[in-house]
Amino acid sequence: MADTRGNRDRGTQPSGTRSSGPPGPAARFPGLGEEQVRVLRRVGREWGRVSAAPEVWRRALPVDPDLGSFPPPAEIRPARFGRLVTISPLGPPPAREQAGTELPTGRLERAGARVRRVLLGAALRSSAVVTERMRKLLALPVLSADALSSVAYGPEAMLAVLVLAGSAGVAYSFPVAGAIVFLMLAVGLSYRQTIRAYPHGGGSYIVASDNLGRVPGLVAAAGLMTDYVLTVAVSIASGVAAITSAVPSLAPATVPIGVGVIVLLLAGNLRGVRQAGALFAAPTYAFIAAMFALIAFGLADAAGRGFEPRPAPALPVTETVGLLLVMRAFSSGATAMTGIEAISNAVPAFKPVEWRNARTTLTWMVGLLIAMFAGIVVLIHLTGVVPGEGETVLSRLAHLGFGSGWMYVFVQAATAAVLLLAANTAYNDFPRVLSLLARDDYAPRVFMRLGDRLAYSNGIVLLSLAAALVFVAFDGLTASLIPLYAVGVFLAFTLSQAGMVVHWWRLRDRHWRKSLLFNATGAVLSAVVFITAGVSKFAAGAWVAIVAVALFLLVTLGIRRHYEAARTALRLRPHTIEVPAHAARGPAPARPERGAAGGEREDEENPQEVRHLSVVAIAALDLAGMRALAYAASLQQPVLALHIGLTDEEAARFRHYWNLWGDHLPLEIVVSPYRATVAPLVHYIEALHRQSPDLTLTVILPEIVTRHRRHQLLHSRTATRLRRALRPLPKIVITTVPFHLP
Amino acid sequence: MADTRGNRDRGTQPSGTRSSGPPGPAARFPGLGEEQVRVLRRVGREWGRVSAAPEVWRRALPVDPDLGSFPPPAEIRPARFGRLVTISPLGPPPAREQAGTELPTGRLERAGARVRRVLLGAALRSSAVVTERMRKLLALPVLSADALSSVAYGPEAMLAVLVLAGSAGVAYSFPVAGAIVFLMLAVGLSYRQTIRAYPHGGGSYIVASDNLGRVPGLVAAAGLMTDYVLTVAVSIASGVAAITSAVPSLAPATVPIGVGVIVLLLAGNLRGVRQAGALFAAPTYAFIAAMFALIAFGLADAAGRGFEPRPAPALPVTETVGLLLVMRAFSSGATAMTGIEAISNAVPAFKPVEWRNARTTLTWMVGLLIAMFAGIVVLIHLTGVVPGEGETVLSRLAHLGFGSGWMYVFVQAATAAVLLLAANTAYNDFPRVLSLLARDDYAPRVFMRLGDRLAYSNGIVLLSLAAALVFVAFDGLTASLIPLYAVGVFLAFTLSQAGMVVHWWRLRDRHWRKSLLFNATGAVLSAVVFITAGVSKFAAGAWVAIVAVALFLLVTLGIRRHYEAARTALRLRPHTIEVPAHAARGPAPARPERGAAGGEREDEENPQEVRHLSVVAIAALDLAGMRALAYAASLQQPVLALHIGLTDEEAARFRHYWNLWGDHLPLEIVVSPYRATVAPLVHYIEALHRQSPDLTLTVILPEIVTRHRRHQLLHSRTATRLRRALRPLPKIVITTVPFHLP
Repeated sequence: MADTRGNRDRGTQPSGTRSSGPPGPAARFPGLGEEQVRVLRRVGREWGRVSAAPEVWRRALPVDPDLGSFPPPAEIRPARFGRLVTISPLGPPPAREQAGTELPTGRLERAGARVRRVLLGAALRSSAVVTERMRKLLALPVLSADALSSVAYGPEAMLAVLVLAGSAGVAYSFPVAGAIVFLMLAVGLSYRQTIRAYPHGGGSYIVASDNLGRVPGLVAAAGLMTDYVLTVAVSIASGVAAITSAVPSLAPATVPIGVGVIVLLLAGNLRGVRQAGALFAAPTYAFIAAMFALIAFGLADAAGRGFEPRPAPALPVTETVGLLLVMRAFSSGATAMTGIEAISNAVPAFKPVEWRNARTTLTWMVGLLIAMFAGIVVLIHLTGVVPGEGETVLSRLAHLGFGSGWMYVFVQAATAAVLLLAANTAYNDFPRVLSLLARDDYAPRVFMRLGDRLAYSNGIVLLSLAAALVFVAFDGLTASLIPLYAVGVFLAFTLSQAGMVVHWWRLRDRHWRKSLLFNATGAVLSAVVFITAGVSKFAAGAWVAIVAVALFLLVTLGIRRHYEAARTALRLRPHTIEVPAHAARGPAPARPERGAAGGEREDEENPQEVRHLSVVAIAALDLAGMRALAYAASLQQPVLALHIGLTDEEAARFRHYWNLWGDHLPLEIVVSPYRATVAPLVHYIEALHRQSPDLTLTVILPEIVTRHRRHQLLHSRTATRLRRALRPLPKIVITTVPFHLP
Repeated sequence: MADTRGNRDRGTQPSGTRSSGPPGPAARFPGLGEEQVRVLRRVGREWGRVSAAPEVWRRALPVDPDLGSFPPPAEIRPARFGRLVTISPLGPPPAREQAGTELPTGRLERAGARVRRVLLGAALRSSAVVTERMRKLLALPVLSADALSSVAYGPEAMLAVLVLAGSAGVAYSFPVAGAIVFLMLAVGLSYRQTIRAYPHGGGSYIVASDNLGRVPGLVAAAGLMTDYVLTVAVSIASGVAAITSAVPSLAPATVPIGVGVIVLLLAGNLRGVRQAGALFAAPTYAFIAAMFALIAFGLADAAGRGFEPRPAPALPVTETVGLLLVMRAFSSGATAMTGIEAISNAVPAFKPVEWRNARTTLTWMVGLLIAMFAGIVVLIHLTGVVPGEGETVLSRLAHLGFGSGWMYVFVQAATAAVLLLAANTAYNDFPRVLSLLARDDYAPRVFMRLGDRLAYSNGIVLLSLAAALVFVAFDGLTASLIPLYAVGVFLAFTLSQAGMVVHWWRLRDRHWRKSLLFNATGAVLSAVVFITAGVSKFAAGAWVAIVAVALFLLVTLGIRRHYEAARTALRLRPHTIEVPAHAARGPAPARPERGAAGGEREDEENPQEVRHLSVVAIAALDLAGMRALAYAASLQQPVLALHIGLTDEEAARFRHYWNLWGDHLPLEIVVSPYRATVAPLVHYIEALHRQSPDLTLTVILPEIVTRHRRHQLLHSRTATRLRRALRPLPKIVITTVPFHLP
């Protein structure tokens, strides 16, 4: 396996075995591998040889570093952009005066933090992570909303293709639906095997990369990620359609309504997984009840007629029945299966014993899904309803069954609610998969950060942005989004099930043949749907999903490459060094140069390897400038003061003042030909670096800091600009000595 | 005088006398006053008593600071946001490889600098400032464009008020115009005195603040500044009207055309004063020629009729002739005088002998102005033209005189050109006045910066922004802008002439009585116009100008207050200190504390006063972290390493690694309860500061710097966020130790 070495080397998991669960809060600071630990010891020995003893350093410490239990509860208060907040969100404002110093927290920021607290809840301690688990009866609605709600658009999407061939096409609805039910059964059984084999969460990404390698794993992840984004977009589009079917006057506001729902989902999920779950349990159960009521009433009505189908309206025939049409109908209808993998992805979110609870929940879900899907298809057949403009099939069925009374309203409301909230399944999984990718260096590390509500906030925000973009780009139309949808899902299914086949073949434990058979069936069927969808709907939008998957691969592999290069660069490189002469009073003498090889590189691991030169950029001999000079001189290292003269006269005047002061430090004045300050300074420092590449140049910048930000405009921005310009230069350390105006 | 002490104290002018010319490039670094020089010596003596001798520091220097003529010509190249550029704008690209290091100059920035060079010209050395002067025949069109072009809208503005009273009103046009001509003569003579008395440039701001005090000076400046902004807006509005009179189909594009012209003016003026002048000489001369041709043809035509006025069309009477109407007509017509002060403001822009050349030019200008204004008014009377919608009066006169042939086109084109370019006078003066305000601490210091084309670029940009805002807000309509216009101008005129009266009274040299009389007349007449305009047009828009003046006063006085407080805070405060024991090997021992009084303040003027503690914020024991530790330890000052643990396990693991390394430095681990890193770090450092307020805490931050900016997203932003959060805390020095990824 390609990335085992990389992982063991970083030692993310102390035990050496790789967890497939989402990374915990500490994963952002990965541990060291065995080899790096050995290197660390060597580096430490070298340090001990040349530096003062630890006791000397400890004695020299002018403070007591142990400030007691930190931070003291009375002083906890919101910091700007910080995550440290008062435990009681509506308690008294934190005592600022008591602290004696200022945190950069304006009135506005404090108010913002307060609002945030009220909306999102108080911060949760890391230890709360274990209790944030779901019972089965809560997990079912939360994790199944996506799959179950798919019956609201799946049958309609299938039929919408078949009607193009008129009643001859509609006649194919039973065989196609039968194939889909078989597929559901096979994939469901297949995922039961996955849950058993991956009790720590066996999403397609984990299974495929564990068993097939890193690129198939990434392809599966790409499929999943595009799927999650589309789940949000399609579910919300379909949910808004349920509302506009009932209240047609709302149709023009489709896009704003949908975006508003995305914002609500964003806020809800930032609160954390448990609250989001409880909030979303009711609509799912209401939808299940509504569907079964609809089917029961419909069947009872049809039973009265001896199950004689009502005559369908005359249909205009625009296509003939053919393999391509049936394939398109099949892949469109298969969108009713999306979300079936959610439970296997989220096994660790269940209460212990996780895998057993997850498996039971999956069985319930697949049973419900098949019953509802089959029931709706039969009902459509019996009532002769066909898809059309302005009203969803489900709405037509409900009108036929219940008229326009409260039962109709209940069906539509439950459908809208479950669809709008089905998107929440994606909010549970997208950030989780992203955090796994980040743990494996395929995504930026910020996606591993657990927010103060123990949710992967950055992933949640990213999903919201992507979904809103897709939703707006496609005007919130379900029909436009469906062709993009199936490709990613079934790509992930195929790779996941194929990975399971390899898993069982490698393992060959008890029952391995049965498990392998189930997974192989699932893999083959999923592959068929993937190819069917990709081929039959390529031009209609599937290409977008394929391009997205390709881009995803490109970006993630690039990120991995960068992180690997960074890790190599950051590896300690032990080397033996000479012990120099004893330090003298005043600035330390220039130390013996190291070998030519190591001079330019930034690989000092030892105080004796650092040869200093402090360059004080000084504009005026005022208190701020004098403090910077005093600071530089007090470091007992060589100091050079540097002044950029704007004209020859100004340069001469500065030299005059410097001599008046006593010329205590070496001074260099550079007259800037074009009245600029930053560029000549940077040039001079570059030239110094070229002259002695082994020196560590500390550029000391006095900087005036005003109390109010608007006053900062009245002072030179040179320090900030200089810091930015010097940042890319090697072996330059930048020290800002702020001077605070009262 | 209120601000003499402040100026002498800063010693901007070594000779002690205050120059009224615009500040040179060196003014951004003001010199020291006598008292500060004495203090500097005392501080230097104290430093010499406790610190190593200068020779020791010089010997310790590991480099030769004299890098030869700097920067070497071959290496001059554009820096990002820098002002240092290749001399030949289209020459070969600067040799980057040769330099061996990287300047932060991407391909995009280099291309931007190249475009900038081609558009704005190569950078000019400071020594070129003397040659950037104007001859009289160039200064006349450049500085008079504003005043002379005013005849394009002044007579029309006057008449537009009079026609409201029908032909009874129009009959007043000769008396009102006569009063305006008298005013022009008086103010012109008055400004001749000013030029003689203020050979270094006697703008209203200088004259009023020198003789009347700082607040009257600021009020005059406020009037001037609003006037300059309105000059740009009104001139462009009127110029665009000249175009749309000739080509009515362009009328809907008034606003975009005007904004485009402002952008052109901006670019032209950023090139520097001389080029801008040469570019703008031709249209002014063309306009003068066109006006005299128009008047001559008109008079010749009228002479053929025995100077019998043509009958005016029947006019609807909406107001009766009254004092208020005449006053409004007078103050509207007086806008023809705007810009008359431009020459006295810009005396230093003339070739030597400046004041004599300026005075001659002023006389020429006033003569031309009176002749053109009177001629146009007479012509209007003779032809019976009245103002109306869609076409300017000047366009009607030209149609009458020349039909629609090429002469008509010439008149309109010259009018449009001179008006569009009249705005340029404001571009000469606005930045100059602003730089004077900045020199006197009434405006941000950035307005003193001479750009690499020796123009006050920041002032030019500000004027463009303000003018564009006003132009767009008033839809580019001259008639809407005129009521705002006169107030500011005549406010400045009044204060300037009143200041001159005081000046002559104080001086009482030869001819002082005559000069005083001229200036007194000018002051009284200007005051009359100011009051007339303020009263009669208050509701029509004059209140906007008055509010602008009040706001200007508020802001400038606030800025001055801030700078004064900053200057006081930055003053050196000499004090005697104790000489501590000899520095030992290893980290320096904690130094004896200073008196309780001085501990918390940021007033160390001496290396012995700085008590150090370096705090290394360390996330991982990789090369970047180890380098930061080595850097900190090599400073031979007390060091404390600080790690923020994300969980207890992570904290224990870090402690374990630290012990493996050898525990060479004191380490403190803070476990963050909510997984944040920045807030606990800031809290800890605040607590350290409270524990020992006299310590200078150096927070050392290892920071990973990537080569491409997009890769920076893959790394923690903690260092940046921490720097921002620590910035407002007192006595905290922030040191960034960058580690550059390959």
